[in-house]
Amino acid sequence: MRAQWVESRRGLANVTQMHFARQGVVTQEMQHVAGREGLPAELVRSEVARGRMIIPANLNHPELEPMAIGIAAKCKINANIGNSQIVSDVEGELTKLRGCLKHGADTVMDLSTGGDIPHIRDVLLRHSTVPLGTVPTYEAIERVKRVEELTARDLLDIVEEQAKQGVDYMTIHAGILRDFLPLAQHRITGIVSRGGALMAQWMMAKGLENPWYTHFDDLCEIFKAYDVSFSLGDSLRPGCLADASDEAQFAELRVLGELTRRAWEHDVQVMIEGPGHVPMDQIEMNMKIEQEVCHEAPFYVLGPLATDIAPGYDHITSAIGAALAGWHGASMLCYVTPAEHLSLPNAEDVHQGIIAYKIAAHAADVARQRSGARDRDDALSRARYAFDWREQFRLSLDPEAAQAKHDETLPHDAFKTAEFCAMCGPKFCSMKVHTHLLEKDLPEVTERADAQLVADSLAFARRAAIPRTGSVAQPSPVALGRKASPAGAAGAAAALAKAE
Amino acid sequence: MRAQWVESRRGLANVTQMHFARQGVVTQEMQHVAGREGLPAELVRSEVARGRMIIPANLNHPELEPMAIGIAAKCKINANIGNSQIVSDVEGELTKLRGCLKHGADTVMDLSTGGDIPHIRDVLLRHSTVPLGTVPTYEAIERVKRVEELTARDLLDIVEEQAKQGVDYMTIHAGILRDFLPLAQHRITGIVSRGGALMAQWMMAKGLENPWYTHFDDLCEIFKAYDVSFSLGDSLRPGCLADASDEAQFAELRVLGELTRRAWEHDVQVMIEGPGHVPMDQIEMNMKIEQEVCHEAPFYVLGPLATDIAPGYDHITSAIGAALAGWHGASMLCYVTPAEHLSLPNAEDVHQGIIAYKIAAHAADVARQRSGARDRDDALSRARYAFDWREQFRLSLDPEAAQAKHDETLPHDAFKTAEFCAMCGPKFCSMKVHTHLLEKDLPEVTERADAQLVADSLAFARRAAIPRTGSVAQPSPVALGRKASPAGAAGAAAALAKAE
Repeated sequence: MRAQWVESRRGLANVTQMHFARQGVVTQEMQHVAGREGLPAELVRSEVARGRMIIPANLNHPELEPMAIGIAAKCKINANIGNSQIVSDVEGELTKLRGCLKHGADTVMDLSTGGDIPHIRDVLLRHSTVPLGTVPTYEAIERVKRVEELTARDLLDIVEEQAKQGVDYMTIHAGILRDFLPLAQHRITGIVSRGGALMAQWMMAKGLENPWYTHFDDLCEIFKAYDVSFSLGDSLRPGCLADASDEAQFAELRVLGELTRRAWEHDVQVMIEGPGHVPMDQIEMNMKIEQEVCHEAPFYVLGPLATDIAPGYDHITSAIGAALAGWHGASMLCYVTPAEHLSLPNAEDVHQGIIAYKIAAHAADVARQRSGARDRDDALSRARYAFDWREQFRLSLDPEAAQAKHDETLPHDAFKTAEFCAMCGPKFCSMKVHTHLLEKDLPEVTERADAQLVADSLAFARRAAIPRTGSVAQPSPVALGRKASPAGAAGAAAALAKAE
Repeated sequence: MRAQWVESRRGLANVTQMHFARQGVVTQEMQHVAGREGLPAELVRSEVARGRMIIPANLNHPELEPMAIGIAAKCKINANIGNSQIVSDVEGELTKLRGCLKHGADTVMDLSTGGDIPHIRDVLLRHSTVPLGTVPTYEAIERVKRVEELTARDLLDIVEEQAKQGVDYMTIHAGILRDFLPLAQHRITGIVSRGGALMAQWMMAKGLENPWYTHFDDLCEIFKAYDVSFSLGDSLRPGCLADASDEAQFAELRVLGELTRRAWEHDVQVMIEGPGHVPMDQIEMNMKIEQEVCHEAPFYVLGPLATDIAPGYDHITSAIGAALAGWHGASMLCYVTPAEHLSLPNAEDVHQGIIAYKIAAHAADVARQRSGARDRDDALSRARYAFDWREQFRLSLDPEAAQAKHDETLPHDAFKTAEFCAMCGPKFCSMKVHTHLLEKDLPEVTERADAQLVADSLAFARRAAIPRTGSVAQPSPVALGRKASPAGAAGAAAALAKAE
């Protein structure tokens, strides 16, 4: 579909979504995004023009179904795939990409650092309906023996080659300046960004400033010819709780804010990368500082991990931090898999990481009270109350996993409509008990609790309760489940009135 | 060890820890807790006397190693085990208990609802070094055909039998009153507490008030003779996001606050059970309301799940909510396993649930800045920076899982000291690059970024950075890892000075 959209733009000096948005043009990409997000197209345009939303969409990635990253849109997740020098296999990466698309990654980064990197990237791009991001430094380093052999020209050439292939966004570690390196010396884990560590090595070896910084305008020229979005890398992100929110991190963030302004002068789209490892009580502060210093450019955070003590389970340690980050304003959450810190993720690690992050992003949408965010929760809960197991599975983030767990104890088809599961059994199923509570003739009430306590408790409850929203606030809510029908509700009310 | 401690207390009318605490006595249990928590024994005594901390420790559970639940102590986790009418097997439950103890559950609840319940419970008690909790209603219901056949006397008899066996705390659904039932009628999932639904059924069938409420003082008499702690059940907790923080929930909570006062008049220990399913933005409010209404009695929350759409992954949906709850004041987190809503958890589900909750509780301790909470994170991070893989595994919450994931790609022993892992490979390991950054002769600096930008960024970073705490704030921190030695640090500083 997108091949036609981009045809008329070829040859223009600036083809970025931001450029069109600032000229008042609503592109087909913006229309598409508006439909997916349930937002007015004009709002999408103005957010893109303002820099508060990006639509990563390279002119040369016609396979893309455009999506948006920004505070007005739903919270997104990115999945990193790509090989390493230790484990390299094109077919394996394609399998991971298919898993990403199936389980709902909103963007994918190809972080390959070994093998035939351009070939792997091309295969991934041609199969990816979601934006593909890269870290060009990785390919650059693969071409030389020692990092210091690289010139700024080499870096720009690689960026241009990747842009031509159709890469939608690139992590550029332009904010780590020579003068910031001493700030990382007293950290426990130093520099943990791969690209950041390599740029530090380059600067130290050559006595020169960061080439991504000194050639930033050249980068912008390439980016605007293809509409590549910046993902400004956080080279000095903390690698452990102890290093979080320190001077190194915030000095670089301040530079990223300046670079955001410079990219915006070229109408080039920008998002900002963020930590990493952060204790829960520092996450909201980190989101607020980024919004302030980086002029509300979308924040794209890695986790953050809320504790360092659970290698093997870092999809969980980081889903906690990611959910909090999304709630407090991060626009995209970069997943972390169970393999983090230990190994290159395999297809199952990718799967587990994506589901954990779909959970985090959705919990964030609900907590931010984004419009309609809770609808799917309500629908699934109604299916649950109606013992409609198949509908529960269908509405699940991972239907196969949900059904498999149910099948473990009750595999037979008959149990998919049973009014209980193996957790409680038929006699102890609270939902079954509650469902049938009002079907009987009820005796007169002969005993009540202390009237004053009841009155006080009800009065307190009225004051403290949060107003009902979503489908519970509607007279005839989502039509799933026996109890949701008006007749059923009326019957229940009648029964209770009788009991009073 | 505990058998001797309790000998002298036998025959006393009131043997509760709260009773002794209020008389100014520091029991051996309090001493033991003080040692485990790193708190002064007198503080433990005064918190127990005040009701803000409980030490669930039945006189007839000599196998117990006492622990504490309360805001002054570290955040705890509970694991539910027990069979159902569908799946029943004593050996299987014992295997689950061993898993609980191995992976670090702080308390265990036996929620058996089928088979020979008293026998299963006795086996579990005799093997459990952690407090064991029960829901006596379950056993009561198993003895009759219909819930309405039960009398208040039956309930009290079962409580006394279980107290005699050594149960340390019991969930008692005394707060759900007849007049609150209509409040649950417009919910999506009605009543989801098993015990709560059964009491609602009893009240509706008989026209009588909740027997746990009407016989609360009789319960206190039994509890104080054995030192059973109340876990006041939240029968009206929400079963989905839409039902959270509603009038039904808060009316019951208000009654639990009154019952807390009444139990305290008997010097009986109390904690309060809480939800359940709660959007992230309502969790802090829920913690504050409980503290206010229930006079700061420890809050023991189930999750809460931050979204309803991921059955099969509810250990993750709920670990997010649990971490937030613990941060904002919950004293114990009741785990949820991947089997929640789908099946009775098996041993592996129990394992996964416990690790997810160890993560949540620890993240909460760190976020509350409990003394020394981050030490283990820092030690593991130092081991990580030093490429001491074995030490990383040892310090992990689940060493076997961490090592297994590392073994997947690099099983050979030689790689357990390698300066990289399969995730990035040797050339791209940021920690390796950073570690070796300063070992070389460095050229003169010939290029720098804009001086004003550097100065502004450093000034901003100084203002924004959080003061360093824990081992990073010490001149010679935790002695793990090559870079932590004073010599190494001095060398790095010298190298940087040279580069300036």
